[in-house]
Amino acid sequence: MNNLDTLSPAGDVEALIDRRAVGYSLEAEFYTSQEVFDLDLAAVFAKHWLFSATEAEIPDPGDYVTIDIGPYSVIIVRDDDEQVRAFRNVCRHRGSRLLENGCGSVGNLVCPYHQWTYRVDGTLVYAESQPPGFDRSALGLRPVHVRSVAGLIFVCLADETPPDFDEVAAVLEPYIAPFDLVHTKVAHQSDLIEEGNWKLVMENNRECQHCDGAHPELITAYFPLFGYSANDITPRMRPVFERYQTAQEHLTKACSRSNFPRDERRELDTRVTGFQVSHLPLDGSGSSFGPNGEPVCHKLMGNIPDARFGDLSIHMQPNSWFHLLSDHAVVFRVLPLAPGRSLVRTTWLVHEDAREGVDYNLENLTSVWNATNLQDRDLVAGAQKGVSDPGYIPGPYSMVEGDVEAFVNWYIQRLRAHFES
Amino acid sequence: MNNLDTLSPAGDVEALIDRRAVGYSLEAEFYTSQEVFDLDLAAVFAKHWLFSATEAEIPDPGDYVTIDIGPYSVIIVRDDDEQVRAFRNVCRHRGSRLLENGCGSVGNLVCPYHQWTYRVDGTLVYAESQPPGFDRSALGLRPVHVRSVAGLIFVCLADETPPDFDEVAAVLEPYIAPFDLVHTKVAHQSDLIEEGNWKLVMENNRECQHCDGAHPELITAYFPLFGYSANDITPRMRPVFERYQTAQEHLTKACSRSNFPRDERRELDTRVTGFQVSHLPLDGSGSSFGPNGEPVCHKLMGNIPDARFGDLSIHMQPNSWFHLLSDHAVVFRVLPLAPGRSLVRTTWLVHEDAREGVDYNLENLTSVWNATNLQDRDLVAGAQKGVSDPGYIPGPYSMVEGDVEAFVNWYIQRLRAHFES
Amino acid sequence: MNNLDTLSPAGDVEALIDRRAVGYSLEAEFYTSQEVFDLDLAAVFAKHWLFSATEAEIPDPGDYVTIDIGPYSVIIVRDDDEQVRAFRNVCRHRGSRLLENGCGSVGNLVCPYHQWTYRVDGTLVYAESQPPGFDRSALGLRPVHVRSVAGLIFVCLADETPPDFDEVAAVLEPYIAPFDLVHTKVAHQSDLIEEGNWKLVMENNRECQHCDGAHPELITAYFPLFGYSANDITPRMRPVFERYQTAQEHLTKACSRSNFPRDERRELDTRVTGFQVSHLPLDGSGSSFGPNGEPVCHKLMGNIPDARFGDLSIHMQPNSWFHLLSDHAVVFRVLPLAPGRSLVRTTWLVHEDAREGVDYNLENLTSVWNATNLQDRDLVAGAQKGVSDPGYIPGPYSMVEGDVEAFVNWYIQRLRAHFES
Repeated sequence: MNNLDTLSPAGDVEALIDRRAVGYSLEAEFYTSQEVFDLDLAAVFAKHWLFSATEAEIPDPGDYVTIDIGPYSVIIVRDDDEQVRAFRNVCRHRGSRLLENGCGSVGNLVCPYHQWTYRVDGTLVYAESQPPGFDRSALGLRPVHVRSVAGLIFVCLADETPPDFDEVAAVLEPYIAPFDLVHTKVAHQSDLIEEGNWKLVMENNRECQHCDGAHPELITAYFPLFGYSANDITPRMRPVFERYQTAQEHLTKACSRSNFPRDERRELDTRVTGFQVSHLPLDGSGSSFGPNGEPVCHKLMGNIPDARFGDLSIHMQPNSWFHLLSDHAVVFRVLPLAPGRSLVRTTWLVHEDAREGVDYNLENLTSVWNATNLQDRDLVAGAQKGVSDPGYIPGPYSMVEGDVEAFVNWYIQRLRAHFES
Repeated sequence: MNNLDTLSPAGDVEALIDRRAVGYSLEAEFYTSQEVFDLDLAAVFAKHWLFSATEAEIPDPGDYVTIDIGPYSVIIVRDDDEQVRAFRNVCRHRGSRLLENGCGSVGNLVCPYHQWTYRVDGTLVYAESQPPGFDRSALGLRPVHVRSVAGLIFVCLADETPPDFDEVAAVLEPYIAPFDLVHTKVAHQSDLIEEGNWKLVMENNRECQHCDGAHPELITAYFPLFGYSANDITPRMRPVFERYQTAQEHLTKACSRSNFPRDERRELDTRVTGFQVSHLPLDGSGSSFGPNGEPVCHKLMGNIPDARFGDLSIHMQPNSWFHLLSDHAVVFRVLPLAPGRSLVRTTWLVHEDAREGVDYNLENLTSVWNATNLQDRDLVAGAQKGVSDPGYIPGPYSMVEGDVEAFVNWYIQRLRAHFES
Repeated sequence: MNNLDTLSPAGDVEALIDRRAVGYSLEAEFYTSQEVFDLDLAAVFAKHWLFSATEAEIPDPGDYVTIDIGPYSVIIVRDDDEQVRAFRNVCRHRGSRLLENGCGSVGNLVCPYHQWTYRVDGTLVYAESQPPGFDRSALGLRPVHVRSVAGLIFVCLADETPPDFDEVAAVLEPYIAPFDLVHTKVAHQSDLIEEGNWKLVMENNRECQHCDGAHPELITAYFPLFGYSANDITPRMRPVFERYQTAQEHLTKACSRSNFPRDERRELDTRVTGFQVSHLPLDGSGSSFGPNGEPVCHKLMGNIPDARFGDLSIHMQPNSWFHLLSDHAVVFRVLPLAPGRSLVRTTWLVHEDAREGVDYNLENLTSVWNATNLQDRDLVAGAQKGVSDPGYIPGPYSMVEGDVEAFVNWYIQRLRAHFES
């Protein structure tokens, strides 16, 4: 009909997947079409383990938090035996939402419509005016798979869960355990809506080439060596590099003394539950995200032996990342809202005994990532606008965008697996 | 592809209708899909008689009110012969909307665009700069079927109207006539947007199992015997039941003395124009929705002989219900706006001679149903959220949800009739 | 299934085009369906020359303005050689939007995401961390066709541009040149969102039958003879007609003295680049849109010999019109936002040396068209509501709606040509 950029959607998503060009950013439809968005929900979000909340958010029996994964709402609740459980947030009577989006504490789960009442283990215990033969036992809340990995709660909506999660949990737990996340508390939590596809949010997280231009607050904490290898070091960079080597050695010794694992593990696109863990030294005084690398909380986490303990950085596919420092942790979760809209939740954790105003100041604790999140929001919105333009054609990744490519590789693999199953 | 809850729409609405399980709430697509919403407009709202307005809203020639039924806008106007007429609210020239949504009074209907001018009987009387041979008589406003039932105005968008409406009108008129609605005035009117499918709004209206938990203001007027039969009465309930029997007898005698019909008629799902009429005694002083059952207007309606005259309650399929009391009437109309959004209009009528501030106080008159409407809005929004969740599966109706089932029965019958015609 | 107005979209756009009835307004789907909207973007906006901006908006090298044509964003920029150039507003790396919607001035075009840097001629000059063999020359900005017609900038998104544009430009330039638009400045610019399809906005512009009823401010400038021919003049109109003839003669002489063209050219539906140019005398003192036809700027435009120089009115298909007067110009551009939503940009130009507060007052300059635009916005919104109603059926054009018909003729021709190509 014409030789212009087509405005029509992909039509055939499988063809779109097949013609993906390695080394190049994805075609526009992956970020803009409703069809791909629905596919992402079905093939990615409804089939994989998703970081959802921290145990710190539900310390006591009856404490709950809800999570909305696309149209799926899930209740995560600590039951009377202290176990973390998860259920579909829907009454079994006429389908009312049980709990409003948010968190709180309950004795039982009582539907606001007709007071059907469930125990926090999901059992239906009360339903009014039922006929003889009514079988309560068949009408308990529908359970959702749930796992805690050293205090980080993951849920999986699928009937059959990815088989490698135990393996990944076994790798990650020794890295996370020293921070004792179960005995932390939520110092702050922020929800940010970004005007971009969830994959653009993730891709933005998976490279720091944009950090120099966009994140002045964040980059002061890290050594300015992003993308450099030892061979690239110019005379001008030499002092920085030496500082970096000293910090590396300090961190290695600290881990070794405490028998903490130290190696980087990078399995971002080589398994179903893709992940990466790396332990990075920090610049300046080397402790945390305070000015000049100073701590932002005076109470150290868990069994951390030393305030200069760098940044234990974990990336999980499809939708989360974590920074664990000696004095606090900051954890991130991305959820899809629409083809061009995502929700980023950031949670700051500190030792459960740390006192606000005494051990930490909320503004100091949160300022770097609050600023960084807002900067990223603008970049992601600009990226969404650009890829939505028929003038967009996929461009080449640079040499420092390997983790972006790994994310995209993983994503394409998971779509393929979805169509094969 | 997978064994998860499907996110895709029904695809085949007829299959969806065929697999409806009697005794269970409807599947999600009935409440969420655009396809079913469009079908509801075509099969229900464009084919049946719809309560639209009251004669009290257009007392004089030239008075009009518009009603938007999905994309259809209709003008209801009293013509110079005092007849109620209805027309499509669209100019026959280039299609401009003739009257903004609302009400008012006109001499002629003049298009705001190029001043094409129609009489209130629909005749085109003026159109500028037309060529020779221009036939005004072919370009009158398009008429819409309209009927008043004792002051309640119904319209039907279909070319051929349901054949049983005269029959139903003949049943209802003797019940309504004593209230003389034609000689009332609008004391108040409120429009409330509810974030739920129109059927959820109707289903919510058709049971009072939720009233105990949700409507503290409303339930004080009624005997707390909802769902009870004489056999169920416990010793604790005995005094209430005796109070109820006394009120019943009082009401029966009052009707009998005035030759007003008293029997309940319940034809909710046994005819095209489904309806129910019942005359319920009220608790407390038994007059109206004031505190402890007191009147809210000192001027009685029409020929009502006694302030203690209970609640003449009428339910009409698909979209209306009415409470006629000795001192006022409150009438309800539900219109679909989107799959998950509806408009509820509530109109309070009092005797045309009642004076605000003297015979009635607006706050007293409206407070119970204003509160009840807002409570129902929240319940309907929670129901819409729940049924939109892939975790929803239809659940069983209780023994006191028979009128909900009757509504759903009627609805499914009408869809089937639509596909058969 | 039923004999009601159908709610479903056209299904077959080509059938919709084929059954268009000459002499009648278009069917509803042309104004309401997403499918036709997408077609309009592909067949009309992506294939034809579109008035986009004025040279006055980008006087110096590095000055730019962006324009969003549906999903296409275009940068119009003056390069270092003073040439006007246009590019897709998308980075060639990962597709970020380069420039936010708006205007400004740049040295180079630098992507805000990873600082890829382009010269204002589109050449890529910087991209960080690229592998060996990276070919910068293949990754310049994608050019867009651009032409200035005596200071009015047109762009065309198609690879192959309409062949008749040079011809049309050659006709128009002698009419426009005397106003020397290149040496004007933007006194004011307003963006108005109208709740109507872009074609309803254009059709509204192409007739003045609605002006008497809707535009009290605007009509004072023009002779009240719209739709009249010399034969129609009644005795009551005689004085007006004589005043008009005098003004006509004055204008003809003024043009003749300066060798300016004077003839009307009307090729609205007889070529790909449809246009009309006509030079109308004004009523009252005959100069401009001030009270009683007074000037609104004391500095005359370009080489205009006389404040009484009428209104050089130009209409261009598909989306623009222009009024050039002795003391200012006001230019209009319509862009589609959604089936029922359009953006109208109005730009007022005055001589580049005119000083605000001295030579002109902004309120005087803009009040007539600001008022007229708001009035038209309401008419267009009413038309959109009406044609969206299933009660709408196309109606007959009157004898003074010839230019509306010409617009529709042109539009239908262009759709047909699109399907034939």
